Amino acid sequence: MMLARGLSAFPVTPADAAGRVDAIGLRALVARLVEARVDSIGLLGSTGIYMYLSREERRRAIETAMDETKGRLPIIVGVGALRTDEAVRLAQDAKAIGAAAGLLSVPSYTPLTEDEVFEHVSAVAGESGLALVLYDNPSTTHFAFTPGLVARLAQVPGIVAIKNPAWTAQDAPGLLARQRALVPAGFSIGCSGDWLASETMIAGADAWYSVLGGLFPHICLKIIRAARDGQADEARRLDAELAPLWALFRHYSSLRVIYALIEMLGICRADPPRPLLPLADEARRQVGDMLASLPPGLLDP
Amino acid sequence: MMLARGLSAFPVTPADAAGRVDAIGLRALVARLVEARVDSIGLLGSTGIYMYLSREERRRAIETAMDETKGRLPIIVGVGALRTDEAVRLAQDAKAIGAAAGLLSVPSYTPLTEDEVFEHVSAVAGESGLALVLYDNPSTTHFAFTPGLVARLAQVPGIVAIKNPAWTAQDAPGLLARQRALVPAGFSIGCSGDWLASETMIAGADAWYSVLGGLFPHICLKIIRAARDGQADEARRLDAELAPLWALFRHYSSLRVIYALIEMLGICRADPPRPLLPLADEARRQVGDMLASLPPGLLDP
Repeated sequence: MMLARGLSAFPVTPADAAGRVDAIGLRALVARLVEARVDSIGLLGSTGIYMYLSREERRRAIETAMDETKGRLPIIVGVGALRTDEAVRLAQDAKAIGAAAGLLSVPSYTPLTEDEVFEHVSAVAGESGLALVLYDNPSTTHFAFTPGLVARLAQVPGIVAIKNPAWTAQDAPGLLARQRALVPAGFSIGCSGDWLASETMIAGADAWYSVLGGLFPHICLKIIRAARDGQADEARRLDAELAPLWALFRHYSSLRVIYALIEMLGICRADPPRPLLPLADEARRQVGDMLASLPPGLLDP
Repeated sequence: MMLARGLSAFPVTPADAAGRVDAIGLRALVARLVEARVDSIGLLGSTGIYMYLSREERRRAIETAMDETKGRLPIIVGVGALRTDEAVRLAQDAKAIGAAAGLLSVPSYTPLTEDEVFEHVSAVAGESGLALVLYDNPSTTHFAFTPGLVARLAQVPGIVAIKNPAWTAQDAPGLLARQRALVPAGFSIGCSGDWLASETMIAGADAWYSVLGGLFPHICLKIIRAARDGQADEARRLDAELAPLWALFRHYSSLRVIYALIEMLGICRADPPRPLLPLADEARRQVGDMLASLPPGLLDP
């Protein structure tokens, strides 16, 4: 049975200015996802500011989410770190607390070679025993997985899935077919970059790792179901309705927009970690206008 | 009097596999620089693996270097971090221990806006009271300072210098003149990217922040003196003699090559922090061959 399938919903991790996780806010976000019956929760993803939180606070976030979900759905936890030993410890923590899998990015400072990344990922898989989703996100980590490296890593025991960067609608079918041919059967191929994900799901990807899904899961579930059921037109229609939201995601980054939305919805009060700044007033007004302009019910169950 | 002038020599920070600094190895590296009378030491730069060391170990490295130099030359300390509060604390530590200045990179995970970087750098300067050298190194931090941002930051009290990324020989005179026009008199403009630094020094930059200078300071001092004294031909001749070394720096990265050289010279035993791997045997052989091929005495006082 494939671990990562359908909607993996990525909530933010609300935290105070000192980087201490707001457990009440996180519970409220997780509870929405349990209620919506998403397929998995993607905790401590990029929007979940994993790179800006200490090991201790990451552990607290996992414990909080595990306690809120009570085993009702799998939690995939971001375990990326600059140092290999640190990533190993984070993966061990996640496994000990009960995460179903780790999401392993390869953030880089000194640019890394493919061999270095192969050894790094293999060490985390081998030393933690945690199932791993490869997290290919060059726009934040500045390391891009080549097809050859994905093929090598997909043979390593415990590496079960990949979260790819955004693929354009035009490229998605070809890239998906090429990657499928390189990995074992049962290896899950997933997409991200919310504004381009619908076409990749229509092309047959297994999972959508979604920032929007971390706050508004229902619309993402509807798109995924339409794509699965061969109703590409319906998936595209729903995706097109979200165009004003995608425009703001692209312009301000999904992270900054989602933080503003969480506050507007009254779920909790949280700012992104400095140096990231909350959206300025004019941008917040645009977010509010966008929300008001969406077709009634679009984001509802 | 300009803080950053001449050769700022950047040693590696030898550390064990767990990230604990080897104080004896670091002392040996620093002692060479004191002996060579470099103009300043650039501790915990990129080659000094600041991003891979804990706050505690960074503090230990500064204390060790301060104790070895005993005030005979200024130490500029890398204080970059992903979080603003962490960078503030690192700068406060450096100041408390006695560093002359901080070298402030802006490493990014979530891509940053210019306003975010302005606020970040201003906070570190204001809350630490440490003089700061802006560290513009897009190849590792993935944030590039625009001329407009440099002009704004150069007005902030306590920001006294910039370490620029490598400029090509062709671009250096124009970029230097443009930057000079944007910053106050007395603001120090420095260069890096060892293989391109000579031309920028010939063009009139104030300081060379050098990886090679952290291990072989004499050749760098000779090039700087020739450039200063209007002997551009001599500076270029010396630079050209180093071509085989520059080729390896470019191919394997200066960090990986310097680590191999430190071991070959018997100064100390240290590997870069994982995921970075030491050079493989074939590459080490190339480094050894290169060293043997340099003109006798080139690297000597």
